[in-house]
Amino acid sequence: MLGNFVYSNPTKLYFGDNSLNYLNEELPKYGNNVLLVYGGGSIKKNGLYDEVIAILKANGKTIFEDYGVMPNPTVAKLYEGCERLRACNADLILAVGGGSVVDYAKALSVSAYSEEDPWQKYYIEFKEPDNKIVPVGCILTMVGTGSEMNGGAVITNPESGLKIGHVFGDNVFPKFSILNPKYTYTVPMYQMVAGIFDTMSHILEQYFSGDDDNTSDYIMEGLMRSLIHSAKIAVKDPYNYEARSNIMWTATWALNTLVAKGKSTDWEVHMIGQAIGAVTNATHGMTLSAISLAYYKLIMPYGLDKFVKFAKNVFLIQDLATKEETALAGLAALEAWMKEIGVVMNISELGVTKDMFADIIKATFINTTGYKTLTKEDIYAILEASL
Amino acid sequence: MLGNFVYSNPTKLYFGDNSLNYLNEELPKYGNNVLLVYGGGSIKKNGLYDEVIAILKANGKTIFEDYGVMPNPTVAKLYEGCERLRACNADLILAVGGGSVVDYAKALSVSAYSEEDPWQKYYIEFKEPDNKIVPVGCILTMVGTGSEMNGGAVITNPESGLKIGHVFGDNVFPKFSILNPKYTYTVPMYQMVAGIFDTMSHILEQYFSGDDDNTSDYIMEGLMRSLIHSAKIAVKDPYNYEARSNIMWTATWALNTLVAKGKSTDWEVHMIGQAIGAVTNATHGMTLSAISLAYYKLIMPYGLDKFVKFAKNVFLIQDLATKEETALAGLAALEAWMKEIGVVMNISELGVTKDMFADIIKATFINTTGYKTLTKEDIYAILEASL
Repeated sequence: MLGNFVYSNPTKLYFGDNSLNYLNEELPKYGNNVLLVYGGGSIKKNGLYDEVIAILKANGKTIFEDYGVMPNPTVAKLYEGCERLRACNADLILAVGGGSVVDYAKALSVSAYSEEDPWQKYYIEFKEPDNKIVPVGCILTMVGTGSEMNGGAVITNPESGLKIGHVFGDNVFPKFSILNPKYTYTVPMYQMVAGIFDTMSHILEQYFSGDDDNTSDYIMEGLMRSLIHSAKIAVKDPYNYEARSNIMWTATWALNTLVAKGKSTDWEVHMIGQAIGAVTNATHGMTLSAISLAYYKLIMPYGLDKFVKFAKNVFLIQDLATKEETALAGLAALEAWMKEIGVVMNISELGVTKDMFADIIKATFINTTGYKTLTKEDIYAILEASL
Repeated sequence: MLGNFVYSNPTKLYFGDNSLNYLNEELPKYGNNVLLVYGGGSIKKNGLYDEVIAILKANGKTIFEDYGVMPNPTVAKLYEGCERLRACNADLILAVGGGSVVDYAKALSVSAYSEEDPWQKYYIEFKEPDNKIVPVGCILTMVGTGSEMNGGAVITNPESGLKIGHVFGDNVFPKFSILNPKYTYTVPMYQMVAGIFDTMSHILEQYFSGDDDNTSDYIMEGLMRSLIHSAKIAVKDPYNYEARSNIMWTATWALNTLVAKGKSTDWEVHMIGQAIGAVTNATHGMTLSAISLAYYKLIMPYGLDKFVKFAKNVFLIQDLATKEETALAGLAALEAWMKEIGVVMNISELGVTKDMFADIIKATFINTTGYKTLTKEDIYAILEASL
């Protein structure tokens, strides 16, 4: 049953191999000062940086830069960015990069003019912005987080060992996002595959919750089938525009609020994965893949009918002798796909050792909306089974 | 492959059995004068009219009314409404009703201040609005058209025998729409089923075009599966909230621009159906159901692989000996579902006789984006097979 909800998504998307041109339509809507936010400089190697600078200059903008955004953006980087943003009095933050860069840009947009400490305000107390928000635009170069069309902004505090995501309201969503699948061609295979599994996990974690009949679940089944199909092509042929464009579009809709509407969601894999990320600094998508099978096998008995649905509707598996067999066949198909596309299948490979379990368990938020509310012992068992 | 596109949808949706309360949040955004647009008065019988009036009064609005919007709104009604709208200088058009009422409200919103004749401007020359547009809000009471979250506005000109839809840009989309599945409980069974098939046809007509691999098609497969499932429940138990809410949500996403993104679409069934509607004034959804099977059987050989996909992914049919057999099994499953929910299966029942064929064929626009561009003989054959 669809529960009550409000839906609105103000982000305007420009999709395709000509989409950067639309930056010329968006820039005149904002003031003169633009803060360009990017990561380690891969956009300088592939030429995108020069293209963006040229368009900004052609539109008469004064350009400021905030670069070196790391894969798991830290609170220290955020503080530094806030000072920079205030100093340049930016009218627009233009994020050029993957999910980390876009997440960071959004965190910056709500933090620079906050009178309270932003980490405490947004990531410990989960308050909403009550101060000036600087608009964010996005040019996406890596696929997975869905950050291009949502209010999510994950920040890591290495000192306290916490990696926390605040999901802001639609006043924090990017005003526009430019999605050119060709920008994702040069992402290293490891990062591409991690992004694909991040997307898959977003869908799985919204799907595996609730036992009602819900249109959102059917939409997710379609998104998963598209992703599974295109991912198999993309790992063999990263320059396949059809596959890369479908993956990019699926990632956007996997986490732009639509598929969660009117239903309960779980998100426990992200909770454990983010704890692993805080302790190891491992690539986000791989922290999810490394524990997913152990997690789903553990909760399967508590949501058996949904796992049967998953097997039948996503992998088109016919009914086997028992529900358990059908459900397990679905998870086996998921495992085979994960191995085929080459995600990390265990946490040892991410540098996790048993002596880290206590810190990971401590840093894991426990949700109560999945098929089973985990105990600390459950998390231990999942980590052990994932070693 | 996803072609290049721009996506944005500014409509804010309030969904659920408490959604009318949100009218109190929306009204303060607009000026004092509200033009309430509705149809034949069923909202007076079920109490919704009184509830809306009470909320408008509580928000200090001056209320004007434009009622009697017919199932196929006419250009004469539109002209009359334009005068009324200008006379009351409305700041907001509040449409309370089904797709016809909402379509009419949108047509009104762009026509009242047009210097050119709106029929000529929007429905013959397909120009875009270059004049003041009055904002539209929507309270939906019937499901099917998707008009609550798109720019479509179909108007009928009985004199010229034309029923034409203009799909306006997102500046004409309703600013907000209130979707309460319970408002649809009292819609007569015939109208409910017609709306369900209208929704199904929206999806089918966007699905059956193109031979690429496209995420949009996968989303549509999910939407169709949800609709097929919930429709079977709703015809037996119209007060089933779960089924009615899923149908309502599916209808919105079937035609709010998302599933057409990056792909070609057909729309020929709507073209023939609208011609039948112009000649007979029959219920829109039933004009589509009555000709669909003949149409799809005729084009099947030209898009065989897609019809196989439809059979396998929507009805979970296993591969049969030949592609043709699998494809036909899919259409047979569609036919069985249509009969189960009770749509009109032939045009005789809608009052069509052979002597009307020439007028229907004359009024039918021929699209070139389906699997086969129809000849006049093809349309004749479809009509004859649908008698």
